[in-house]
Amino acid sequence: MSKQFQLAIGLDGIAVAESDLSLVDGLNGLLVYRGYWARDLAIHHTFEEVAHLLWYGHLPNEQELSALKNQLKQHRDLPEHVKGMLRLIPADVDMMSVLRTGVSALGNDSYGWPPTLEQVISVTAKMPTIVAFRYACLQGREPLDPHPELDHTANYLYMLKGTEPSHAHVRALDAYLILTQEHGMNASTFSGRVVTSTESDLISAITGAIGTLKGPLHGGAPSEVTEMIEAIGTKENAEPWLRNKLENGERLMGFGHRVYKTIDPRATALRVVAEQLSGDDPWFDLATHVEQVGLKLLAEYKPGRKLNTNVEFFAAAVMRAVGLEDDLFTPSFAVSRVVGWSAHILEQAGSNRIIRPQLNYTGKMPE
Amino acid sequence: MSKQFQLAIGLDGIAVAESDLSLVDGLNGLLVYRGYWARDLAIHHTFEEVAHLLWYGHLPNEQELSALKNQLKQHRDLPEHVKGMLRLIPADVDMMSVLRTGVSALGNDSYGWPPTLEQVISVTAKMPTIVAFRYACLQGREPLDPHPELDHTANYLYMLKGTEPSHAHVRALDAYLILTQEHGMNASTFSGRVVTSTESDLISAITGAIGTLKGPLHGGAPSEVTEMIEAIGTKENAEPWLRNKLENGERLMGFGHRVYKTIDPRATALRVVAEQLSGDDPWFDLATHVEQVGLKLLAEYKPGRKLNTNVEFFAAAVMRAVGLEDDLFTPSFAVSRVVGWSAHILEQAGSNRIIRPQLNYTGKMPE
Repeated sequence: MSKQFQLAIGLDGIAVAESDLSLVDGLNGLLVYRGYWARDLAIHHTFEEVAHLLWYGHLPNEQELSALKNQLKQHRDLPEHVKGMLRLIPADVDMMSVLRTGVSALGNDSYGWPPTLEQVISVTAKMPTIVAFRYACLQGREPLDPHPELDHTANYLYMLKGTEPSHAHVRALDAYLILTQEHGMNASTFSGRVVTSTESDLISAITGAIGTLKGPLHGGAPSEVTEMIEAIGTKENAEPWLRNKLENGERLMGFGHRVYKTIDPRATALRVVAEQLSGDDPWFDLATHVEQVGLKLLAEYKPGRKLNTNVEFFAAAVMRAVGLEDDLFTPSFAVSRVVGWSAHILEQAGSNRIIRPQLNYTGKMPE
Repeated sequence: MSKQFQLAIGLDGIAVAESDLSLVDGLNGLLVYRGYWARDLAIHHTFEEVAHLLWYGHLPNEQELSALKNQLKQHRDLPEHVKGMLRLIPADVDMMSVLRTGVSALGNDSYGWPPTLEQVISVTAKMPTIVAFRYACLQGREPLDPHPELDHTANYLYMLKGTEPSHAHVRALDAYLILTQEHGMNASTFSGRVVTSTESDLISAITGAIGTLKGPLHGGAPSEVTEMIEAIGTKENAEPWLRNKLENGERLMGFGHRVYKTIDPRATALRVVAEQLSGDDPWFDLATHVEQVGLKLLAEYKPGRKLNTNVEFFAAAVMRAVGLEDDLFTPSFAVSRVVGWSAHILEQAGSNRIIRPQLNYTGKMPE
């Protein structure tokens, strides 16, 4: 019998770090980024401001914000060899695999240990360009260069769609991306920290995190919500369609969350933004209506289960409103979550210790 | 004050899985692969036999071995687009970054969930080809196609060096690669399991593991040993050179291990192989002499510290004897460890549960 260690498969209830970055309190429906409610940040601030908060520890003043925006703009372009490599990837390879390979291809000596804020800004700036580059190639059009006047989220939409986006679309996507920038010690963030803990480079850590987010148990839900809202199609159809699902014992997509046992604060924030913009896009109207009917019917069919709207529900509405298709959902999640990943990677590197757990051996011993 | 969880930074002493794959008992100097002493496997078996043991749970009979060898041979070639991508990577990018990108570039639908033995064999077969392809490009020669008659290790050496290797060199490298195929829940293996736990694909998991192994706290030591043995140069110089280091309070590379507090069983096995081959290569002679002097002097200068020879010491001797330069050490480690990574990934997928720990929030609460 070999030595047995405390067994914690899944690592539930084990803290692997002390962190100043975020508090996820699912029981009470709280999400805090470095001392601020994520909900308020999403409603009142921008992608760059919140990234600054997570990376530097405070919201930027005007000068700091301007400096960060400029740095991000300067780092958006991809090296020519990376563009060449992206062009060679066959059309049937999924976008998350392309993003993982594209980020890995950025690796060189300039990303050496320890990770730095400049490295972090560089990768964050380039990830939207990789996604948009690939997307354009798939559509058979020449990829657009990044727009030197547009901020992070607006430029992402511009590179994807080929035209300058409306204020409402930028606002809605910005709010969604802010709310997905950071979320405690989820699996992808943790894998980024494990990679970093060997003093490996930032590119390796982000590549690992992208590969982890690719799994459907982590980054996968929103497309199922859009399919649902699209199948419903009109406000009038919401109640009969959802009731039929529940009568057949099926799950409603976009409700309930592993962590949040009460209201998902990210859903609350996106509802506020969706309501603010409801005149601007029929998708916001339809989604808020489907949500109301869904909550009513869940209370009727699953009383006491506390199945609240989760972030994927409004994420789906936002992504569809701004015109991003299902296969851009998880890649766009990665485009924002890289902010949290890299903040964790910087924190891990700042007081590093290798992450090396044990296993309990259950095999035979040699005779 | 937010909820606090059991804090286990580094996860020392926490088992994250029950596993039939290997037992690493550092206190007693034991290493077991699925019921066999790794030492005996390295001395008496081949790369493919031990890979079969780790993947299928038993050593192969003649038919099974022949089938596995054929499968590996059939999967060695790289897709044309991956070759094209590898050619585009600038010459100053390090080999581990190239390997990470090359493996990531293999990703497509054929590696979908769940991971399979065929997928695992395919990646294991292709990793040596990626390393050798890049190595040839850097040397300005056209990469060789895999050799259809040679087994895994011999073909790896053939593709790297351009000529068929001697029996002694194949035997020595084979033993080293067997001993590095698997080693419990190290950081790279764990990162592969974390990626897999979201039901992400095999390519994502191996890519994450390669990025983790790239860190010098994990995969980095052997090249420091070759520098030491090269600096010593002759048997006569061993004692004065090593004594001078110890007088200056410096560490001797290749002695001592975080896990093994007594003899590293991998070092024992490689010493046996090195001694068997000592007539075949002066490196084996020099290395065994340096080891003896090193152990004698460590007992003199650091009494009671139990600093034994570690696997990197003989790894360095083997790698240099077979003519592989320092920048091929960690990539060759990856070429063998992929067997253990993938065995763990298959085990994780077989009874999967998402690995999602907690953090203890130490930041401010909103006012």
